[in-house]
Amino acid sequence: MRTVKVRDIGEFGLIRSLQELVCQWKQPSGETTFTLLLGIGDDAAAWRTVDGTELATTDTMVDGVHFRHDLISWEDLGWKALAVNLSDIAAMGGSPLYALVTLGLNPETEVEDVHAIYMGMLSACREYHCQIVGGDMVQSPVTFITVAMTGVAKGHILTRQEAKPGDIIAVTGPLGCAAGGLQALLQGTVLEGEQGRHLSRTHNRPVPRLDACQTLVQSGVNAAMDISDGLTDDLSKMCVSSGVGAIIDAHQVPVDSFLKDTFPQGYLQLALNGGEDYELLFTGKEDVVSEVVTQLGPSAAVIGRIVADHPGIVQVLDERGAEFHLDRHGWDHFR
Amino acid sequence: MRTVKVRDIGEFGLIRSLQELVCQWKQPSGETTFTLLLGIGDDAAAWRTVDGTELATTDTMVDGVHFRHDLISWEDLGWKALAVNLSDIAAMGGSPLYALVTLGLNPETEVEDVHAIYMGMLSACREYHCQIVGGDMVQSPVTFITVAMTGVAKGHILTRQEAKPGDIIAVTGPLGCAAGGLQALLQGTVLEGEQGRHLSRTHNRPVPRLDACQTLVQSGVNAAMDISDGLTDDLSKMCVSSGVGAIIDAHQVPVDSFLKDTFPQGYLQLALNGGEDYELLFTGKEDVVSEVVTQLGPSAAVIGRIVADHPGIVQVLDERGAEFHLDRHGWDHFR
Repeated sequence: MRTVKVRDIGEFGLIRSLQELVCQWKQPSGETTFTLLLGIGDDAAAWRTVDGTELATTDTMVDGVHFRHDLISWEDLGWKALAVNLSDIAAMGGSPLYALVTLGLNPETEVEDVHAIYMGMLSACREYHCQIVGGDMVQSPVTFITVAMTGVAKGHILTRQEAKPGDIIAVTGPLGCAAGGLQALLQGTVLEGEQGRHLSRTHNRPVPRLDACQTLVQSGVNAAMDISDGLTDDLSKMCVSSGVGAIIDAHQVPVDSFLKDTFPQGYLQLALNGGEDYELLFTGKEDVVSEVVTQLGPSAAVIGRIVADHPGIVQVLDERGAEFHLDRHGWDHFR
Repeated sequence: MRTVKVRDIGEFGLIRSLQELVCQWKQPSGETTFTLLLGIGDDAAAWRTVDGTELATTDTMVDGVHFRHDLISWEDLGWKALAVNLSDIAAMGGSPLYALVTLGLNPETEVEDVHAIYMGMLSACREYHCQIVGGDMVQSPVTFITVAMTGVAKGHILTRQEAKPGDIIAVTGPLGCAAGGLQALLQGTVLEGEQGRHLSRTHNRPVPRLDACQTLVQSGVNAAMDISDGLTDDLSKMCVSSGVGAIIDAHQVPVDSFLKDTFPQGYLQLALNGGEDYELLFTGKEDVVSEVVTQLGPSAAVIGRIVADHPGIVQVLDERGAEFHLDRHGWDHFR
């Protein structure tokens, strides 16, 4: 009998099968005042305490998989390793608190470079009011950074499970710049001037939308998540979690002029498929979403609607209402 | 100018320098009801909430560094990855709550093996009343497992910083079996019968002392930590944290008959230097420690005393009170 490899079922197949294993084994935990609200499958785990709701998430960056040293500085790498976790906390409607940092390092790594990683992480901590409180340091043939981040939500938490048929779908800002920046860096394209700096900076030094998430919580949107793997891919995950379908209008997806000018042909594919923008994707009643989009300013935009049909499926339409062809679908770690 | 490499300053030099960086950057965090009690440098981070004290720790196991697939089953690997984190929670006097699990996997890994890792982790969760609530799954050329674990302490927390001159030093159980098991496995020695199973099991499936830690908390010991890198090495870390010195009597270090019979010459070196036993090391007033040792039963033992002289230095004495020669000192990831 042929053995099944991780490659065969992919990242999300593997996650699903492990989620089932964990659920089968679920059991009442010891005597505690904590109540688990959300386990595996959302941007962060969440549990209720006397104080409110606590959050915890973790994200890893592996050399040669998530980054290449010739394309990102050690300091930006540190910033990004923190920022992607902060983005998960933002996606839940929370505020970050404490970070545990694990570094897997080759002994030949220069100490100055490790310090630069920390300077990048500490800049993000200062900017977003959180602290590094511990971690682990291990020898590894490949460099990797794992950050585990805790946070707290004062209002209700924003999950992926509550998108409802009839909801309007919106995003907090322009998409595609991070993927455009990466594409240019990979092709060795010289990105010059303000335009170039903007694209490479969006990729290497993403901004977690901890500001926008508070507007989302206060306005009462139904569902939210951050866009890390690409708009259509992440939206389809939300649709699976909520048991709904989605229709988005490709031409309504917000794209900034830097991306449009650099990729006049391909910008829409980058905006629909490209990951790592770390804007938030959210759904809610029409009046709620309109109000949020107005409050967030001109780069936020309504992009489509949630439907009851075809649960888990995201349909992308062009300006004439015909199906828009996508070049590829999102990011799977093992395929 | 020659650049300084991680290898040059070692794991603990690197941790110290990063700790300084983090402290320089320390700043009041955002408006919160949480108060940080312990940051980098103990078995776990700790913060006070309205509910009590929360704990968070993380530990990583890297293929070829912390384990070898030919020496440990995938299921035991999963158990151990959880257990080493549970041990950190025990070392703080806490109870475990929630775990985030990160797996770095080659796409060629068999799904069955990943499930076996999870079965091992879930066995540990069931045994010690905690839950896996999230994590991350990434492609990596080298397999690694990072677990981040939260916990809660109802009483006061046990730190490494409170060992006092005059304190008695004790351990919760026999030492050296894990290192003995590893040595036998590495040498390809056939470990037969009950004796062999005991040694390899102690190495591959360590038991976090979550039971003993509650006795320590209730009795009011001064300082505690778990023994992961080796008795003398870990004790010297406690001495550095507390600004004290220590004297231990080699012949008082508890060793079981399985280890003694298998390594009649080297058992004491294994007990003093060998890591990964995950027993707890603790200090306190003489009457407190005696009472704890009595309560814990015959394998717990008093092994020495804390002194004011030579802060950070651990002296090991033989039966005649002369210096006991140690073959090597502990474990440093980068040296």
